[in-house]
Amino acid sequence: MSTKATFYHAGCPVCVAAERTVAEGLDRSKFNVEIVHLGEHKSRVAEAERAGVKSVPALVIGGQAFHINHGADLSVLKA
Amino acid sequence: MSTKATFYHAGCPVCVAAERTVAEGLDRSKFNVEIVHLGEHKSRVAEAERAGVKSVPALVIGGQAFHINHGADLSVLKA
Repeated sequence: MSTKATFYHAGCPVCVAAERTVAEGLDRSKFNVEIVHLGEHKSRVAEAERAGVKSVPALVIGGQAFHINHGADLSVLKA
Repeated sequence: MSTKATFYHAGCPVCVAAERTVAEGLDRSKFNVEIVHLGEHKSRVAEAERAGVKSVPALVIGGQAFHINHGADLSVLKA
């Protein structure tokens, strides 16, 4: 069974680089990867926050949040 | 041809989580993944620094440095 991996981003250049390289680089036979643009889906900011996401881009795998470099704080996306 | 991906760490708990999840989650048909413990291979700290690594754990893929959460600053490993 594949593990759920959610990549949260906001379309920023730092986010795009992480998406193209790290998120798209994950082994699809192991992970079910979902890409979520929090700027376009603000209703999912709370979900990201509950998973421990503090900034984007971030990857949540198996309940653990991995922040990849720093594009924007999550607080900016709540506005 | 597979892309070189180098995961630099220092054995810290944050590093281990990132290694087990993100580094080991990369698609091995796309990436040639090397895991480097900078605490044990201090001679490679300079190489990581040249690649733009500021802290560990970090993944360098195709010349781009992706810092994954924050375990320790690279400066600590130079001591």
